[in-house]
Parts: sequence; structure tokens; C-alpha cells
Amino acid sequence: MNSPVSLFSTLPTPAIILDRQRLEANCARMARRAADAGVRLRPHLKTAKSAEVARIATAGQFGGITVSTIAELAYFFEAGFRDITYAVGIAPSKLTAIEAYIARGARISIVLDSVRAAEAIAGHAGAPLSVLIEIDCGGHRAGVAAGSDALIAIAKRIADAPGLHLEGVLTHAGHSYHAASEAARAQIAIAERDAAVLAAERIRAAGMTCDTVSIGSTPTALTDVPLDGVTEIRPGVYVFFDLSQARLGVCNVDDIAVSVLATVIGHHREAGHMLVDAGALAISKDVSANEHDPHIGYGLVCDIDGRPIDGLYVADVHQEHGFVRSTHGTPPFERFPVGSQLRILPNHACMTVAPYREYHVLDTASDALTKWSKTYGW
Amino acid sequence: MNSPVSLFSTLPTPAIILDRQRLEANCARMARRAADAGVRLRPHLKTAKSAEVARIATAGQFGGITVSTIAELAYFFEAGFRDITYAVGIAPSKLTAIEAYIARGARISIVLDSVRAAEAIAGHAGAPLSVLIEIDCGGHRAGVAAGSDALIAIAKRIADAPGLHLEGVLTHAGHSYHAASEAARAQIAIAERDAAVLAAERIRAAGMTCDTVSIGSTPTALTDVPLDGVTEIRPGVYVFFDLSQARLGVCNVDDIAVSVLATVIGHHREAGHMLVDAGALAISKDVSANEHDPHIGYGLVCDIDGRPIDGLYVADVHQEHGFVRSTHGTPPFERFPVGSQLRILPNHACMTVAPYREYHVLDTASDALTKWSKTYGW
Repeated sequence: MNSPVSLFSTLPTPAIILDRQRLEANCARMARRAADAGVRLRPHLKTAKSAEVARIATAGQFGGITVSTIAELAYFFEAGFRDITYAVGIAPSKLTAIEAYIARGARISIVLDSVRAAEAIAGHAGAPLSVLIEIDCGGHRAGVAAGSDALIAIAKRIADAPGLHLEGVLTHAGHSYHAASEAARAQIAIAERDAAVLAAERIRAAGMTCDTVSIGSTPTALTDVPLDGVTEIRPGVYVFFDLSQARLGVCNVDDIAVSVLATVIGHHREAGHMLVDAGALAISKDVSANEHDPHIGYGLVCDIDGRPIDGLYVADVHQEHGFVRSTHGTPPFERFPVGSQLRILPNHACMTVAPYREYHVLDTASDALTKWSKTYGW
Repeated sequence: MNSPVSLFSTLPTPAIILDRQRLEANCARMARRAADAGVRLRPHLKTAKSAEVARIATAGQFGGITVSTIAELAYFFEAGFRDITYAVGIAPSKLTAIEAYIARGARISIVLDSVRAAEAIAGHAGAPLSVLIEIDCGGHRAGVAAGSDALIAIAKRIADAPGLHLEGVLTHAGHSYHAASEAARAQIAIAERDAAVLAAERIRAAGMTCDTVSIGSTPTALTDVPLDGVTEIRPGVYVFFDLSQARLGVCNVDDIAVSVLATVIGHHREAGHMLVDAGALAISKDVSANEHDPHIGYGLVCDIDGRPIDGLYVADVHQEHGFVRSTHGTPPFERFPVGSQLRILPNHACMTVAPYREYHVLDTASDALTKWSKTYGW
């Protein structure tokens, strides 16, 4: 049996370690939830940006995926995915790229939330574009209110445009990341479902079709709220989970499938910290889990086997330096000399893994380490 | 004459626009400062991560550069740079890569700050490694105190190791980013210089050589503090500057050479924001300039020509969404319909440009737009 110590010792750091068994368990859990709720699972691949992860997340599903950049769309198309929702409000300048992939056989849905945005793309050349109307279910980021006149006006503008096909409605309860309790999270899940279903019913009542009713965030997807009227869910971060999700009660810390492998590069005993070679770029400046627990800083620190070390966290980050401190006072300098490796659990996996070129995938069943591809940038 | 509107209209967004004339002026300014102070300029390329930028920053200089990752070291070596300081505390696992580049003709300096770190690499195979001892000049990130016994112990350990060559000392006044006034910044610059010079003098007084006395951060480099006893400076962010540097008084806002080109993807009139397709990954979550001015948020918003729009800033970011608000109340929705392009000035250029694949370089003298390469990741 190889130990993580020997498996990881020649890896360049910082690096992302992805625990395959945890990934598979997380994907199986979401697949069960989708099956139980009777909805399709269209995973949001903005988190993993990886074809290998996408294949596990879509195994046994209908094969559709969600992306948030054109770079992701291009990468997943080349990896063989053909049913893709680009779930960020469309800008006319993105159409050239999108139509090129449609011409090559992709089925792509785009998203908008205003008559003006519909008008800006209504006259495009090429085959009709499938359009989802974005609904605001309470997050107040984007979208129209499900009960608004604007919804029907947008739907009519799309339905009337020869270049557009009104496919349905889409919403995202991003505010579920700030739910203070399980009850609050369930309430947001209900509001998310109800907003999408109401919008779809109003569009149909106005004489138009609305085949797709798409909702989803990881915290709302992983409730037991019934999803009648919904056709698909689009959660993303569940493939990896992270400290934010753990603090929300959506997962346990030992469900988190990604960690940043870092090397101790210095001891600063007077200042009370160890330095690691994973900083603001390698971990990200996201501190979202501190909303629920102020002792997380930029991440919790684990030993090489991935076991959290009580009280050890990343207290500060510079570009390529992380400051590891202990809530108990002095960090365990003697246990972790310069050159030791540590693993850092992220606040927000989407932010942390984004800039990396690849995943180092640990298969704990066979004690093997392999590399998986990912995309990055735009 | 091409306008930025027509030059940028087909660019995929988000993208980094780099103003070549500003870059050149910023580099010329630092070159003058180094010449006036009688020191060598070894620019820190962790900011730009670009060979084309490095060529401008090193034009007329001795050609040495600074990097903070092995990926940068590899990229700049392949681009022809041969004198490289890897300015992050060395870990033994990095030596294989470093020695491979030395074997191919690179002159590489490494950094450490403890006897244990020196011992961990003292027995390496291959030609002697040039080592700089890191000095803590008040930032309390890494380094030993210039007046400490530890300094001499480390120097002796290096000087005694056949596999190591004691090249000199290095310090970085990162705390200058938090200087509350120009006077405070000058005081930090003096402390930075004095710490490095004292350390060098003590090493020499103990009978060892100390050829390199390396200091540098952009805020301390751009003071008029005399640099007697210093041999080189290693500033980085000056090539681009950013809102943090402007708020420190180190530059003006119109010296900032990089901005994020973004497209308006939605209006949310009830919530009082416009959405752009540049969010937490494209701008970064760095909010450092808010330490000096709380109305900056995640960045100041400019029109397509790069002129700041009074009161407009990025108030919040999600992964691929930026929320543009106005300190005056309603943002100018009519002026910027969906599909319009904006340019966002960053808090901290190093964080913002890091994940991009390339720069779109605007030459305002010829109204031409070209692409420059960069590296990313690790």
C-alpha cells in the first residue's frame, strides 16, 4: 500500500488533490436526490471544469450539463458533451461562438431576462436559439419576478422571434449559501421551486410553451422539498463540497473531495505562524465559510492523509504565501518541519480549483494517483 | 483611427486590456529610480507573468528577473531569461526543477531563512546553489531579524556547505501596502534598506561574503530614500499599478495599465445594479484598496476608453457575475444597454491578471490591438 506521503512527495506544490471516492459518493448522493424528486440532473461544471469529473457527474443521467463561460462550453464540447446550458445572461458578442458549436452538433440553451436582451439577439442569423428566461427567486442577482408582467412580455418577444425558441425558465437560489438554518434553507428551496413553477404556468397560461423548468443550487437541491413541476436541477459545488457547504450543514467536512496540497516553506516562531507555498492564488481569497464560523480563515489545515488538525487554519494569504496559525496558540512546528506537506480544505471549491491546470486524483481504493484534465480562464 | 469601441467589439469577455504606453511609462519610471539610486533593477514578474512585459521591464537593465513559482521560472527560462531569483522560501521538493534549469544554463538564486532549511538542501547533488538569506524588515511574513544571532548561524551553515553558495540577503517590505501616509511609506523604505544593509554588514563582519543586498516592493521603491549599501531592487506591481497603489499615492489612477474588459449582461433596476460578465474569477476577490477608500468595492468602472465613470464601481461578485452599482444611486442603465462593454480597474493587479491566458495589448499610438502571452497556475 502506498501512503499519501509517498504518493504526494514528488508532486509540485501547490496542487489540487481530488479524492475519487468522495467525488463518486457526492455524485451518487445528488443522483439519488434527482431520482427521488423525479427531475433530471444537469450538473453545473463551472465548479470542476473537468471532463473526467463531468463523466462521473453525468453517469446514468441524461447527459446534459451546465457551464458559465464560453471556454467551458468549448472544452466540454471537445470532450464529447452535446447538451449544454450556458447559464450566464447572454451578450450578443457571445453568439458567434455559440452558433459555431450549434453548427457542429451541440444543443445549447442560452439565458436572458429582459425584452431588450431578447431584441438584441432576435435578429441573429442561423438556426433558432433555445432560450431560457431567468427568474429571480429571491437572490436579486438576475432575473425577472415570476409574477411580473415583464415575464410575459419577454416570453412573447422570444416566442415571436423567428430566430429564437422559447424553451423554458431557469432560476438559481444563490442566496441559499447564506441560509442561517436548515429550515431557512428549505424555505429558500421552496421559494426557488415555486418561482420557477409559477413562471412556467403563467407562460403556458398565456398560450406559449415552456418545456424546461430548471432550478438549482447545491444547498437547495440537497433538501427533501418536493419538486413537482420542476424538470431539472443544476447544482454544481456538490461534486467537491467545501467548508461553506459543511458549515451550512449540506455535507460533512469528510465529504470534501478537494484539498490544496502545500509544502511548509518556513517557520516564523516569533510571529506564531508556519508559511506554506499556497497563498491567495492557490487557495483564493474567498472566506465565505467564516460567515458561519469565524475560525476558518482561508481554509482548514489537514495532515497528509487529509485529517483536519485541530485548531490549524490559514490565517492570512499573500500571492504565493499562506500563513498557517493555530487557534490554540503555537502551531505544531516540530511536527511539520520545512519541507513537510499539508492539505488545505477550501472555503469555496469553485474559487480554489479554478486557476489550476489539472487535478491529482487519489484513488483511495487502489492507492493510485492519476492526473485529470481541466479548463481554466476564458 | 480605430476607437477602442471598434477594436474591442469582437473580443471575448472577460479579457485583460493592457495599455502599452502606460506600461512603458511605468517601466521607465522605475528604471529612472533604479538609476538615480545606483541599484540594479530585478523586476518581479509574478505580477505580469508575461515574457513581452518582462522584455520591456528589463530593457536597458542587467537582465535579471524575480519569480514566485516554478511555473514562472520555467516559462521565463523558455523565453530566454537566464538570471532568475526564485523569491519564495525554498522547499527541498523544488530543487529537482531548479537544478534542471541550472543544468540548462540558468543562474538561479534561492531563498531561505533558517538553519533547518539550509540543512534540508545542503546535501543536494549538482553544482552549488546560490542562496539568499531572507531578512524580516518589519513585515513579519518570513525572514530572520537583521540583528539576530540566527542570521549569522544561517550564513555559516550555508557558507560551510559544499553544495551551497552564500550569495547575499533579500528582504521585502510587504507591509508598505498598508502605509497610511507618504511619510509612513518612506519610513518603511528606510527600515527595509537598513535591515538588508545591516544584515549584509554583519555577515561580512563575521568573515563571509555577501555580494547581493536585495530589497524591494513597489511602494518602497518609489520613494526618494537613498539606497546606499543596496545592490538591487525587486518591485513587481509597478509595471501595471492598480487601485491599491493609487490609493497609497504611489501612482495616479490614469497610470493603471490593466483593466478587465467586461460586457453588460443584465439590468436589475429594482435591485439597482447592472450585471457584467466579470466576477470573482475575472476580477478576483481582492478588495485591498478599500482599506484606503471604502467606495472601491471590487473595482472602479470605466467607459470603453478607460475613463472612470464617476461613482460607478463593482459592489459584489459571484463566480462569473459582477454587480455594478453607483455611489450616486441608480447606475446609468440607458447609457450602457445589455451588450455594452465596460472596463474595470483592479484593486490588486497581481490577483486580477493571474488566471488569464493572455493580454490584449492596446497601443494607443498606433491604435492597434495585439496579443501577448502569459503563464498561469503552477
